[in-house]
Amino acid sequence: MRVEGKEYRSIWIHPNNKNVVRIINQAVLPFRFEIKDLTTPEDIIDAIKNMLVRGAPLIGAAGALGIYLAVVKLHPGNHAMATLRTVANNLKESRPTAVNLSFVIDQIMNKIPENTTLEELKELTYRLACERIEMELEFSRKIGEHGLDIIKEINKKKGGKPVNILTHCNAGWLACIDYGTATSPIYMAHDNGINVHVWVDETRPRNQGSKLTAWELGQHGVPYTIIADNAGGHLMQHGMVDLVIVGSDRTTRKGDVANKIGTYLKALAAHDNNIPFYVALPSSSFDFTITDGINEIPIEKRSSREITHIEGIKDDNIIEIEIVPGNAKAVNYGFDVTPAKYVTGIITERGICNADEVSITEMFSDIINK
Amino acid sequence: MRVEGKEYRSIWIHPNNKNVVRIINQAVLPFRFEIKDLTTPEDIIDAIKNMLVRGAPLIGAAGALGIYLAVVKLHPGNHAMATLRTVANNLKESRPTAVNLSFVIDQIMNKIPENTTLEELKELTYRLACERIEMELEFSRKIGEHGLDIIKEINKKKGGKPVNILTHCNAGWLACIDYGTATSPIYMAHDNGINVHVWVDETRPRNQGSKLTAWELGQHGVPYTIIADNAGGHLMQHGMVDLVIVGSDRTTRKGDVANKIGTYLKALAAHDNNIPFYVALPSSSFDFTITDGINEIPIEKRSSREITHIEGIKDDNIIEIEIVPGNAKAVNYGFDVTPAKYVTGIITERGICNADEVSITEMFSDIINK
Repeated sequence: MRVEGKEYRSIWIHPNNKNVVRIINQAVLPFRFEIKDLTTPEDIIDAIKNMLVRGAPLIGAAGALGIYLAVVKLHPGNHAMATLRTVANNLKESRPTAVNLSFVIDQIMNKIPENTTLEELKELTYRLACERIEMELEFSRKIGEHGLDIIKEINKKKGGKPVNILTHCNAGWLACIDYGTATSPIYMAHDNGINVHVWVDETRPRNQGSKLTAWELGQHGVPYTIIADNAGGHLMQHGMVDLVIVGSDRTTRKGDVANKIGTYLKALAAHDNNIPFYVALPSSSFDFTITDGINEIPIEKRSSREITHIEGIKDDNIIEIEIVPGNAKAVNYGFDVTPAKYVTGIITERGICNADEVSITEMFSDIINK
Repeated sequence: MRVEGKEYRSIWIHPNNKNVVRIINQAVLPFRFEIKDLTTPEDIIDAIKNMLVRGAPLIGAAGALGIYLAVVKLHPGNHAMATLRTVANNLKESRPTAVNLSFVIDQIMNKIPENTTLEELKELTYRLACERIEMELEFSRKIGEHGLDIIKEINKKKGGKPVNILTHCNAGWLACIDYGTATSPIYMAHDNGINVHVWVDETRPRNQGSKLTAWELGQHGVPYTIIADNAGGHLMQHGMVDLVIVGSDRTTRKGDVANKIGTYLKALAAHDNNIPFYVALPSSSFDFTITDGINEIPIEKRSSREITHIEGIKDDNIIEIEIVPGNAKAVNYGFDVTPAKYVTGIITERGICNADEVSITEMFSDIINK
C-alpha cells in the first residue's frame, strides 16, 4: 500500500542486495517513518522481540527470512546444521505465543535435505522464504476480493453513498505483507472507486488502531476517523455503521473468534443493531483442533504498564508518561473471544463461510483431514 | 471519604471563614492532591469551566455557593439585584449542558424576595446553598444504603467471597459531595466489612475511571483494579464480574439511561452473561419529560483533542502528549444511551425501581405530577 505516495510492503528484500532484509520499523509508527535494514538472524530476532515487526503473517515472513539470513552467515563445516537449528530455535522463541512463527520455521527446517551444500541451502531457504511471502500476499489479496463483494452490495443498497466500516485493532497491511486481512476488502473497495469511510477504534491499551490502522489508511488515502473504543455502540445505534470487519488471532472450528480485547463488545453491539459483523482471516489462523473458544483458548495477560503508561510525541520527541495514580493496580488481558453466534461470516482466502462447524468444515475439509 | 487518612468532601466552607469555599482541584488529580480556596463567583465560574469541579451534584453545589459568594461581594444600592442576576447568568453559562446547574441557580434566585436587605440575602443564600449540599449528601447516602442490599445479597450467595463490581467513568464522591452515586453502595459495603473489589474501566477518552475513580477508591482503601474499557466483556464471560453499577447523566421516564460513552457496551455484555446491571442516580437526574433515550437525548460531541492527546506525569511534571498520527481525524461523542431493557434496576434515594415506566412513575409520581 502507499506511504508518502510510494508503494510499500511491510517486509522486502533490498533491491540491490539479496542478503539485506528491509522492514518498516513499526515501533516508532506513527511518529516516524523509518526503514530498517536487517542483515543477520539476530537482527530479525530483535525486530520481532521489540515489535519493530508484528502481526502473525509478517512475523512468519520475518522468521522465514531469518532462516535465510542464518544460512547466509553459516560457515562451512560439520557444525553448520547444528548452528542453523540453534538459530531456528532462537527465532521461534523470539515470540513464543506466535503459533504461526513456529509453524513457518518448522516447515522450512523440515524441507531441508540431509546432505546439501551451503550454496544449495542458501538457494532453497531463499526460495522458501519468498514462497511464504508470496503465499501470505496471495491470501490477503484473495480475502480482499471476497470481502469486496460485501462492501459492493452495501454500497449498491445505499445508492452509492459511502459505506461506513468499523474496525478494531490493526489487521492491516502492516500486520501482513500487504493489503492486510480486515483492511484488505477496504483497500480494494477504495482502489475500485467505491466510497468507504472507516471508523478506527483506537484499541486500548496498545492503541494499534489509532497508531497503526489510522496511519496506514491515511497514507493510502482512505477516509477514516479515530474513535474511542467506547463509541462504537453509539454509532451503531444511530445508523452510522454499515459493516464491522475485524481480524482474528485464532478461530475455532465452530467459528469462535479470538481477537484483540474488546472485539466481543463490538460484536454484541453489531448484533443488537442488526449490523453485519465479519471476521477476515487466512486459513492459517484457524485452529481446527478446538471448538469452544471461551473455554479452550487461553488469554494472554500482558504487562499492566501498557495500561498505566502511554507513549506519544511532544516537541518531536517520543516520550512515555504515566496516566494513572502512582502505584495503581491494573490488569491487561490481551484478547477476548467472540462467540460464533455473533459472527455474520468469516472471510477467508477461499471465500466467505458461515461461523459454524458445518460451513467451516465444508470449506476446509482438505486441511482438517490432512 | 478518606484522602491520605483524613475525611474529606469534594466542596466545603472554610472552617475559619464562612466566605471562603474550598474544593479539591480535580483538574490535577490523580497527580497532585491540591486544595483550592474560592472567594468570588468568578473563582467558582473558572473552577467549573476548567473542570476543577465536575459532576452534576458537585457543580450544582458549586453554583449555589457561587450565588452566596456573589451576594457577599455585592455593594448596597439600586443595582445590587441586577448585578446578582448577571452573576447568576454567568454561573449558569459556565457549563451550559449541566441542566442541574441551571436548575439549582434558578431555584435559589426564585426564592429571593423582592425587598430584602443585603444581610438577609446573605443569610438566605448561605442557608439555601447549605441545604442544597445537605440534600445532595443525603441522596448519595440513601443511594448507598439501598444499593448496599444488592451487594450484601450477592456476598451472601458467594459465601462471603469478595463481590466483584465493575464500574464505568467516575460516578464517585468526587462528582458528588460525598459517597458518590455508583460508588456509594461500594463504600458502604467496604465500610461495613463486606469484601468488595472494583474493576475500574479507565473510561476513554477522558480517563475519569483510571484518573478519578481509581484514585478515590485507593485513597479510601477499597481494593480495585484498573482495566481497559475493552476488557469488561472478557471478565464477564469468565465469571469475574458479579455486578455492574454505573451512574447516569440523564434517565428517561421509561428507564433509558444516558451515561458516559461506552456504558451501553457494558450493559450488552452484562445482559449476555446474566450479570445484574444497575444504574445509581438521584431523582434529579431523571428527565420525566422524555421517554425514548436514543431518539430524544442529544449526545454532546466534545473536542477531538481528548482522543488525540493525553495528559500524564513524567519526572513529576504534568505534561500532554499527542498519541495519534499528525493531522489524524478523530471524533469524540461524550455519552451513549443504554436502552431500559438492559438495565436490571435503578438505585435512587427512594429505593430501587425497575427500569420501566410503570415502576418509575409509581416511585416518583409526586415529582412527575407537580
